[in-house]
Amino acid sequence: MSKHEWEQDPAELLRVGEDFALKEVDADATPGFSGDKEDGEEELLRREEVLDDLQERLFASRHEGGPAVLLVLQAMDTAGKGGIVRHVVGGVDPQGVELAAFKAPTPQELEHDFLWRVEKRLPRPGFIGVFDRSHYEDVLIGRVRELADAAEIERRYEAIVEFERRITASGIRIVKVMLHISRDEQKARLMERLERPDKYWKYNPGDVDERMLWDGYMAAYQTVLERTATPDAPWYVVPANAKWYARLAVQELLIDVLQDIDPQWPEAGFDVEAEKKRLEAS
Amino acid sequence: MSKHEWEQDPAELLRVGEDFALKEVDADATPGFSGDKEDGEEELLRREEVLDDLQERLFASRHEGGPAVLLVLQAMDTAGKGGIVRHVVGGVDPQGVELAAFKAPTPQELEHDFLWRVEKRLPRPGFIGVFDRSHYEDVLIGRVRELADAAEIERRYEAIVEFERRITASGIRIVKVMLHISRDEQKARLMERLERPDKYWKYNPGDVDERMLWDGYMAAYQTVLERTATPDAPWYVVPANAKWYARLAVQELLIDVLQDIDPQWPEAGFDVEAEKKRLEAS
Repeated sequence: MSKHEWEQDPAELLRVGEDFALKEVDADATPGFSGDKEDGEEELLRREEVLDDLQERLFASRHEGGPAVLLVLQAMDTAGKGGIVRHVVGGVDPQGVELAAFKAPTPQELEHDFLWRVEKRLPRPGFIGVFDRSHYEDVLIGRVRELADAAEIERRYEAIVEFERRITASGIRIVKVMLHISRDEQKARLMERLERPDKYWKYNPGDVDERMLWDGYMAAYQTVLERTATPDAPWYVVPANAKWYARLAVQELLIDVLQDIDPQWPEAGFDVEAEKKRLEAS
Repeated sequence: MSKHEWEQDPAELLRVGEDFALKEVDADATPGFSGDKEDGEEELLRREEVLDDLQERLFASRHEGGPAVLLVLQAMDTAGKGGIVRHVVGGVDPQGVELAAFKAPTPQELEHDFLWRVEKRLPRPGFIGVFDRSHYEDVLIGRVRELADAAEIERRYEAIVEFERRITASGIRIVKVMLHISRDEQKARLMERLERPDKYWKYNPGDVDERMLWDGYMAAYQTVLERTATPDAPWYVVPANAKWYARLAVQELLIDVLQDIDPQWPEAGFDVEAEKKRLEAS
């Protein structure tokens, strides 16, 4: 094993288990990977082929009731959700990916239960779905900004666990990722957006308002992780101050779940030799 | 100008104009590009940065009523639509792309006018939409397989021109591409799918049935090109026996239309210096 490879499976190292404490996670760390940024970027490209092959097999073997993968991305602003979509998910065939970015709910969405809009965006069998934010916003900003009362927030944790149990049983493998950056790192990243005119469009004054509620968000995340990490729908907290590490780790989490599904090329649903003859004659 | 660059703009060379005759197009040709496959693959990567930058600007500057791009891909089976999506469109941020693959219409879709399902998948401002097949199927297979009578097919050409005029006026820039392969090349590509178990899933016996109607399809394409190539919604016929050339040409067509839109980084919608101070204090 080359020194640039994973030394320990990030799925084991980063999975939220009993007695997990978010405040003990070092956002600068690169657990399980001993290499530096350059090594990490090389490894990302090398493993892209593995992910690509697995995704194509998943897609090729898709069938009603068959497996799908759902990657849920949650994070504070600037933590790098977009980079995961771009550099990890972007490494596979876009035809097999279904992206859903959840913004503040529309008036129509608010008329329904909070899971209504999420259900509609679940990936079809054979697809990798990616949620850029998700139903977890309803127990994060929903709690921190008091958009719902405490009893309703309480109800939602249970509702989420039930919902995820049902969709898992239907064949969707859920990988939930919190990209974890430090407060200082967020400040530096927001400042960069204010210093580069080609980055202004990514800056929103509301980002600083949310930042001021940092401790409240961390407490809300801690509760989410305690209440909704289940064996079937695990949470992974990925240190994300080093963007290259976060990308590499999420790539490996996807590879892991796909290897577990172990999709196979489907057999021909036709007589191969007969088709060769028909084609030859055509 | 290096010998590997475009010598003539493919948008001019490949655009369908007056007196266009599909049967005169050489599917093996690589018009406007003097390099070989290796040169072409290098150029694709080099120009990817240009396309990527333009796409990000388009996305960054998106606003209600603003411009979008719609790439319509039509072709006989195996011509390489999927490769365009993968290797050309896949080079830009997936968050700014909206893919729509149109299959045989569902019973619900058949209850509506043929443009109903298409309208729903038009790209939002700031996005690049890609149609993998499109409303043109309704005047291609629709005509060849006689799924509608002659009067209805005739009505559809007019309806398409009106529809495209309206969506162009609404801000969508349409780039319509027919990937053109030869009949022999299609046979070779289908045969490869029958020779490799990891390609069986891409083979459908119906592909040979369609292939047997090749001349009918070419006649239907010829009529489509004559009737629906307009200044606002031009058709490009891209020789596609060389996959690398087809990808390079479509990439350049997208670059062309984006350069014509010339999207600019939006100005800050906030007081940059004041925000720096707020952020610093947070």
